[in-house]
Amino acid sequence: MKIKQGDYVLLYLDKRRRYLVKVDSKKEFHTHKGIIRLGDLEGKNYGDSIKTHLGINFRILKPLPLDFVRNFRRGTQVIYPKDAAIMIIISGIGPGSRVVEAGTGTGALTALLAHFVKPTGVVFSYDVSRKNLENAKKNLKMSGLDKWVVLKLGDVTQEIEEKEIDAVFLDIPDPWLAVENSYNALRHGGVFVSFSPTINQVEKTVETLETRGFIDCSTFEVMLRTYKVRPGKTRPETFMVGHTGYITFARKP
Amino acid sequence: MKIKQGDYVLLYLDKRRRYLVKVDSKKEFHTHKGIIRLGDLEGKNYGDSIKTHLGINFRILKPLPLDFVRNFRRGTQVIYPKDAAIMIIISGIGPGSRVVEAGTGTGALTALLAHFVKPTGVVFSYDVSRKNLENAKKNLKMSGLDKWVVLKLGDVTQEIEEKEIDAVFLDIPDPWLAVENSYNALRHGGVFVSFSPTINQVEKTVETLETRGFIDCSTFEVMLRTYKVRPGKTRPETFMVGHTGYITFARKP
Amino acid sequence: MKIKQGDYVLLYLDKRRRYLVKVDSKKEFHTHKGIIRLGDLEGKNYGDSIKTHLGINFRILKPLPLDFVRNFRRGTQVIYPKDAAIMIIISGIGPGSRVVEAGTGTGALTALLAHFVKPTGVVFSYDVSRKNLENAKKNLKMSGLDKWVVLKLGDVTQEIEEKEIDAVFLDIPDPWLAVENSYNALRHGGVFVSFSPTINQVEKTVETLETRGFIDCSTFEVMLRTYKVRPGKTRPETFMVGHTGYITFARKP
Amino acid sequence: MKIKQGDYVLLYLDKRRRYLVKVDSKKEFHTHKGIIRLGDLEGKNYGDSIKTHLGINFRILKPLPLDFVRNFRRGTQVIYPKDAAIMIIISGIGPGSRVVEAGTGTGALTALLAHFVKPTGVVFSYDVSRKNLENAKKNLKMSGLDKWVVLKLGDVTQEIEEKEIDAVFLDIPDPWLAVENSYNALRHGGVFVSFSPTINQVEKTVETLETRGFIDCSTFEVMLRTYKVRPGKTRPETFMVGHTGYITFARKP
Repeated sequence: MKIKQGDYVLLYLDKRRRYLVKVDSKKEFHTHKGIIRLGDLEGKNYGDSIKTHLGINFRILKPLPLDFVRNFRRGTQVIYPKDAAIMIIISGIGPGSRVVEAGTGTGALTALLAHFVKPTGVVFSYDVSRKNLENAKKNLKMSGLDKWVVLKLGDVTQEIEEKEIDAVFLDIPDPWLAVENSYNALRHGGVFVSFSPTINQVEKTVETLETRGFIDCSTFEVMLRTYKVRPGKTRPETFMVGHTGYITFARKP
Repeated sequence: MKIKQGDYVLLYLDKRRRYLVKVDSKKEFHTHKGIIRLGDLEGKNYGDSIKTHLGINFRILKPLPLDFVRNFRRGTQVIYPKDAAIMIIISGIGPGSRVVEAGTGTGALTALLAHFVKPTGVVFSYDVSRKNLENAKKNLKMSGLDKWVVLKLGDVTQEIEEKEIDAVFLDIPDPWLAVENSYNALRHGGVFVSFSPTINQVEKTVETLETRGFIDCSTFEVMLRTYKVRPGKTRPETFMVGHTGYITFARKP
Repeated sequence: MKIKQGDYVLLYLDKRRRYLVKVDSKKEFHTHKGIIRLGDLEGKNYGDSIKTHLGINFRILKPLPLDFVRNFRRGTQVIYPKDAAIMIIISGIGPGSRVVEAGTGTGALTALLAHFVKPTGVVFSYDVSRKNLENAKKNLKMSGLDKWVVLKLGDVTQEIEEKEIDAVFLDIPDPWLAVENSYNALRHGGVFVSFSPTINQVEKTVETLETRGFIDCSTFEVMLRTYKVRPGKTRPETFMVGHTGYITFARKP
Repeated sequence: MKIKQGDYVLLYLDKRRRYLVKVDSKKEFHTHKGIIRLGDLEGKNYGDSIKTHLGINFRILKPLPLDFVRNFRRGTQVIYPKDAAIMIIISGIGPGSRVVEAGTGTGALTALLAHFVKPTGVVFSYDVSRKNLENAKKNLKMSGLDKWVVLKLGDVTQEIEEKEIDAVFLDIPDPWLAVENSYNALRHGGVFVSFSPTINQVEKTVETLETRGFIDCSTFEVMLRTYKVRPGKTRPETFMVGHTGYITFARKP
């Protein structure tokens, strides 16, 4: 499949120099290793290389969903893949699922949810900020996942319009205020998943979930530790992200 | 949607007493809280309750993919959801992906891969043990995900028959011996993901990957910590799983 | 230095079979590997071996402080060495320090504190339970560290009698109630260290410390991960202690 | 006890602005909050305050051992308190112990060892670098712990001159080469403790220890996680040190 105008490709030199670019015959891309004419990518195949004007070879890769997410324009903080991964898998969603999410933020989790519910599912993503929604819209469009997303200006602590939803994903400051609306939006057996940075948010949310009749509540956190692997010199990296947030899971009975 | 003969349902009393059962008018299910006639589940709705002969109420839930996996008959060890989750998300697979996996084991990762590549993708799952494959076949059938899986008796360190594969998932004792075959099976930009309990396996695998020309190699581990959340008495659980395995990621350029 | 009547020695076969015994010519010690007459230890040297009546060799080792602590009779839970270690080092105590501790519990932390403040320091150790104090007394006597400890029946949330103390160590359910008394007991620059299992205890304690005028407050936890080291098969142990408690540090200005 | 010329004091404004200074009537200390005349500290008491020329109050604290270590001039990397703490406590050393250490480095672990073996013990500290030793000498002098330390230019993989040592502490690139000399230097029951950043160093060291006849070998790592404690907003810090090194323990039988 030849690369064509408007496609996004990942130019890869090494782990630090990797750029997501759009094929465009009118533009150039400037790197510390020289200039690449973005029109020259047209007609190439994934796996080919392209040279900068200084003769440095970049590999042309087809972007994975996470390559898009890493390049999303940031309005707010982006959820870490380690957290998104476990949230998605415990939620039980998959192709065809109908999902509610809040807040949209930059659209990072939105994009991953859309990726996994396509081709027949849908993500209803709420945010109280029009600016966030506009930014997320561009990001989702870039990743090509926008057609499985309905962006909604609204506050899930006030109202969730959808019914018979398979899973609700919350990354908002006061998730406990959205427990009642989540309950009403979910189908029987549907899953509530919430992400919160502080343990106090978790306490309030779990208490509200149990009071409301949610079952199978559990809370956990995921720590990811990367390694420097060199034969004879292998060790974990010196610095790591020590905390992003706690994840709370529950089911509507 | 009414529950019917042959369906699997989750009977839920609390976190520890949760049972995956098959609706069958000829069978009874015995719990410490009394007997449930499995034929009585027919015609009920998800979200309803059912009473044991001792009058204890169990909730009837539609099982999530992980509910099936937790109930898989064990031949070998089962991959943890925390590891499966991140492996799936970094691999970039989704609906429609073509995936190779080895070894099948109990079919736990197989089932999750099938869940996410359906309705148009396929998982080619290799195992050197006929017994494992037979066990996995039953497990996959139970979860209803068997139609997206091709179980194959074979050794991926000897041969991988498929080509233009989107991702290869390895959980075998000597993944470095399958690097060459993985390279040849993958499409350009395709992803190699390996899971290994020891750091020595990781060293050999990463060295082989880099020698073979894979790019963007990284290795990490995921630690999951669960919390006991009670207002005013919140703390992590005393015991945790400290190690399952290291995950190595790489791309074919 | 010859071993003599009344000495405690560590009989070591392997990591799991290690026994702290008292040399006593009237007693026998029964193990799964046979019987050892405890009088036969007299006159031996540390580093020698002794045979059971079945001919199995046990090494005779001089016990370290932690060998005693591991063998303390348990009334309540014992502090983990990982926690005691960091508590002691951040407290700045050393030979000659005057220390207050509560509660005594089994005397595990008490013993370690005594070990490090000897030969000229003292540990005033409070407990509200007479039973705990009696048990701790025996444990401390066994370890030979009792002469640097003053066991006191009393509640530090009600009163701490000592003044000009170098450090206060708390492992009690409501440490925030002992902040005021700790302040008054400490010398200028003296250190407050508290150990609590729940995050809610930490919140209350830190808030009270800051209100009272303590400075340099910090809270952390220590996780210890053990490894199975075998050439070519090295990996962390599967299970670990995921949580014991949070440690809070502060100084009186 | 009045502060006098030549004493070291800790000037404390807040967690980030804390300075270890020497009382010296001829010097001034410049901070972002103004100038302090170091002679003005003479005659004050610990716990008093001192004003900069801009009127900002700094607390005058008596430095703890770790306050000195944090201010050591750095030639090489300094061991973390979390690691030093557990190494010291498992080693069983205390007042009166005779200890060998290599390499000296900046003298950080040396200072802590000296602090805990005083007033009657001694630390023999080896380094192959004369420059390290000179730097460590100044650091130890500042902390007032130099009189319990014998700094030695030498390579412990070649020779350890001492005998009947209670514990050997190694933080060198090739600890396995010093196993034989450590064995000969240790008393019966004496403890070997080694700190290494890579898992490969650990494998070689443990293998050599077991071959040489050391017993009770164990390897572990310590992870320290700090918390931001604010009522209602408590959470672990975002970033943490993910790895410093592995600690290996063994006893001479």
